[in-house]
Amino acid sequence: MNRRMIFYTVGQIVGLEGIVFILPLMVSLCYWEETSMICFAISLVSALVLGGLMMLISKPSNKVIYAREGFIIVTFAWIALSAIGSVPFVISGEIPNVFDAFFETVSGFTTTGASILTDVESMSHGMLFWRSFTHWLGGMGVLVLIMAIIPKNSGTDSGRAMHIFRAEMAGPIIGKLVPKAKDTAKILYFIYLGMTLLEFFFLVIGGMPVFDSIIHAVGTAGTGGFGIKADSLAGYSPYSQWVITIFMILFGVNFNLFYFIILKRFRAVFTNRELWVYLSTILISIGIITWNIMPIYNNFSDSLRHSSFQVAGIISSTGFATADFNQWPQLSKNIMFLLMFMGGCAGSTAGGLKVSRVIILFKIIQKDIRRLLHPRSVTSVKLEGKALDNNTLSSVSTYFALYMVLLFGTFLLISFEPLSFETNMSAAVSCLNNIGPGFDQAGPMNGYAVYSDFSKVVLSIAMLLGRLEIYPIVLAFYPHTWTKK
Amino acid sequence: MNRRMIFYTVGQIVGLEGIVFILPLMVSLCYWEETSMICFAISLVSALVLGGLMMLISKPSNKVIYAREGFIIVTFAWIALSAIGSVPFVISGEIPNVFDAFFETVSGFTTTGASILTDVESMSHGMLFWRSFTHWLGGMGVLVLIMAIIPKNSGTDSGRAMHIFRAEMAGPIIGKLVPKAKDTAKILYFIYLGMTLLEFFFLVIGGMPVFDSIIHAVGTAGTGGFGIKADSLAGYSPYSQWVITIFMILFGVNFNLFYFIILKRFRAVFTNRELWVYLSTILISIGIITWNIMPIYNNFSDSLRHSSFQVAGIISSTGFATADFNQWPQLSKNIMFLLMFMGGCAGSTAGGLKVSRVIILFKIIQKDIRRLLHPRSVTSVKLEGKALDNNTLSSVSTYFALYMVLLFGTFLLISFEPLSFETNMSAAVSCLNNIGPGFDQAGPMNGYAVYSDFSKVVLSIAMLLGRLEIYPIVLAFYPHTWTKK
Repeated sequence: MNRRMIFYTVGQIVGLEGIVFILPLMVSLCYWEETSMICFAISLVSALVLGGLMMLISKPSNKVIYAREGFIIVTFAWIALSAIGSVPFVISGEIPNVFDAFFETVSGFTTTGASILTDVESMSHGMLFWRSFTHWLGGMGVLVLIMAIIPKNSGTDSGRAMHIFRAEMAGPIIGKLVPKAKDTAKILYFIYLGMTLLEFFFLVIGGMPVFDSIIHAVGTAGTGGFGIKADSLAGYSPYSQWVITIFMILFGVNFNLFYFIILKRFRAVFTNRELWVYLSTILISIGIITWNIMPIYNNFSDSLRHSSFQVAGIISSTGFATADFNQWPQLSKNIMFLLMFMGGCAGSTAGGLKVSRVIILFKIIQKDIRRLLHPRSVTSVKLEGKALDNNTLSSVSTYFALYMVLLFGTFLLISFEPLSFETNMSAAVSCLNNIGPGFDQAGPMNGYAVYSDFSKVVLSIAMLLGRLEIYPIVLAFYPHTWTKK
Repeated sequence: MNRRMIFYTVGQIVGLEGIVFILPLMVSLCYWEETSMICFAISLVSALVLGGLMMLISKPSNKVIYAREGFIIVTFAWIALSAIGSVPFVISGEIPNVFDAFFETVSGFTTTGASILTDVESMSHGMLFWRSFTHWLGGMGVLVLIMAIIPKNSGTDSGRAMHIFRAEMAGPIIGKLVPKAKDTAKILYFIYLGMTLLEFFFLVIGGMPVFDSIIHAVGTAGTGGFGIKADSLAGYSPYSQWVITIFMILFGVNFNLFYFIILKRFRAVFTNRELWVYLSTILISIGIITWNIMPIYNNFSDSLRHSSFQVAGIISSTGFATADFNQWPQLSKNIMFLLMFMGGCAGSTAGGLKVSRVIILFKIIQKDIRRLLHPRSVTSVKLEGKALDNNTLSSVSTYFALYMVLLFGTFLLISFEPLSFETNMSAAVSCLNNIGPGFDQAGPMNGYAVYSDFSKVVLSIAMLLGRLEIYPIVLAFYPHTWTKK
């Protein structure tokens, strides 16, 4: 166990967060919000000093790490990120309770977007920006960002890169776009930044204020969902809502496909099974819900707009809302509940089980049925033209079992709250899948302020488990990981 | 595909049901309920004629069947049983709607105990007896019963026996107690009958009327749950309630263990992992719920009695109730919701996933975590001292995935009803796991009368899927099963 290397990398992350604090500090300067300025300055200096010290005292001579160190680094990096990231909220007094601030920051970095704020419109611009910008950082991954920007200094670094890359990127099979993980990270961040700017551009030309456009662009890009209005996106123009709908769907697509488009490999895009399942699920859901909510809105275009926005918001795990879907008929709500489990495509910034995992699960089921009929036949399971080996298959079904166990565990632990079944079940599902809103008392127009500090910690852990796809965290706290070589 | 053999065996089942109609006919005679008498007589004759004709026209020369025929036989036998079994309800006018009658009969045979009756106390004794007796028949399995009582006539029959045995008995691994499936079936039915009589005896000496004792003994034995009072067991003495609590727990235990007790192999009983997990889950749940509901009942003994009864009723999938647990705090309800998934032990009459499947799922998860830490290590998964091969392991995790897919499917299909999230979710879970009551509008003191005919059909299918552990039904309706040799 290379403990120095773990400590060192977490130090790097803390230092990076210090540097990133410059952005909300600049926003505070623009709006001349004195308290925020001071708080971000303090946070910036503290994070830089702490991160620097951690790197200094643990400068490793041996940079070789294995999968286990990768898992531990990612876990502690994310916990450190969230802890340090909540400092400005606490010291500014805008979110005085540390549990609230931690929940809000975890919710930001994990791109969940679940909020304990009861009056978001009273927050300062600096804090609102920082809150939403954590979505952007967490969406593609902070360690992936480090990988993209820090010059590599040795050959062993690339081994480290791949272990961390695997642990932080979402999906059952992580493919590198190019031979080097570092270059893959650069390409991904380039696409990510480009698409964020594109959305910002479309929002601004539609008349949305610049600050609001930035917030919603970064919130969509990370599939996060923190807004700056009490009614989320309900007050903006239909044009803006449609722009965000389209970008929410886009940010739920595997980023590899955007790279293929840049390379003009359109065939690889159009034959992508995961994309087709993702888009068909969206279209079918929009169709049923539009029909189901028609009596509420009385006209087709409003029904279509609201159903499209909400479906895109839920399946991409963003969680923005233009309507209080909690008031919708049960059929529409239940469809959205099931979409929460599926989530977006692997290799996107979206949460949930991921479409490809759902496809693989169905293929495993089909394989098992065939095996019962023809016990001696050997059938292979393919996805995107590649055969999946038995280890991958069993790890997908085991992941699903573990995921359900954690979902039930979260649900049970927050059951001490005197809240409805629907509230607690949807909150657990929503947090574990990094969606944001749930139903009933945890609905899109309510939030998580009703929960106790204990439940906020439980839900924060669920969000982290969901974002890092469970294993890194479970392994980091599994005693065997630490004891044996 | 041996179609004649399929048709012939289903004919046998229909004929057997005709013979069994003698019992409710006798009950109707005792209480001199004329309409019931006539209806059971008509049903008896019709079933005998129909079953006889089916056997006559399809008398097979070749008795060899394979696994696929086993699945198809079990599926169609259960559908035929439920259809014929609902005839007396319909023609007597006591349950005039055919969908209602089919739902009620499926609920009986699958030992679910979910009821569409709004006034159970107005039913005739004959119908009440038939309704509850279906639990007893369905609990251990109707084809297993045929196997136990019909003299075997050829060597090939034992192959058939095993395929049917596998398809109708519950649990991930079906072990024969003795080399021959036929003898195993006899032993199981002997234990089953003995324990039912024992419970009947304890209920009668406690002062419960004979008719009520019969109803509750067969209802407990099959872990069914149909009662004869509007408030289920609430009106009976604490003594009776404790007797039923204990027998509900016993009927959720693997019957192999009772056989071991007869053989004085106590060590095999005390070292049974599944039993320990089952009993500890019950004890822990009772402990938490007793504490949680104390404020409602104001004294320890009532809280303990109600929590024990309800926990035993849910985990064994019986579904009797002594209290409207729908009014309990959310924590207690949520614990019971999770117990619904687990169910009783494999090889019992209980429903749910089965304790051993849950244990295996946890072991698979643990194995996968170890594999991530030590990619090259080979670890085997053991249960009850035996190593489980990879096929068994992957079939358990695949079963779980398929089970969740069907649960979500059922939930979605009944979402067209204007009922609460809690109602529909708990109804789907309750029916698929053969429990009986759900929560909210499907709570223990309400029932399923609120559902439309469409939803009743959906829930009937869910109950059959749950009782036959999914695969037989899926395979019977899978096109490949029929087309290829």
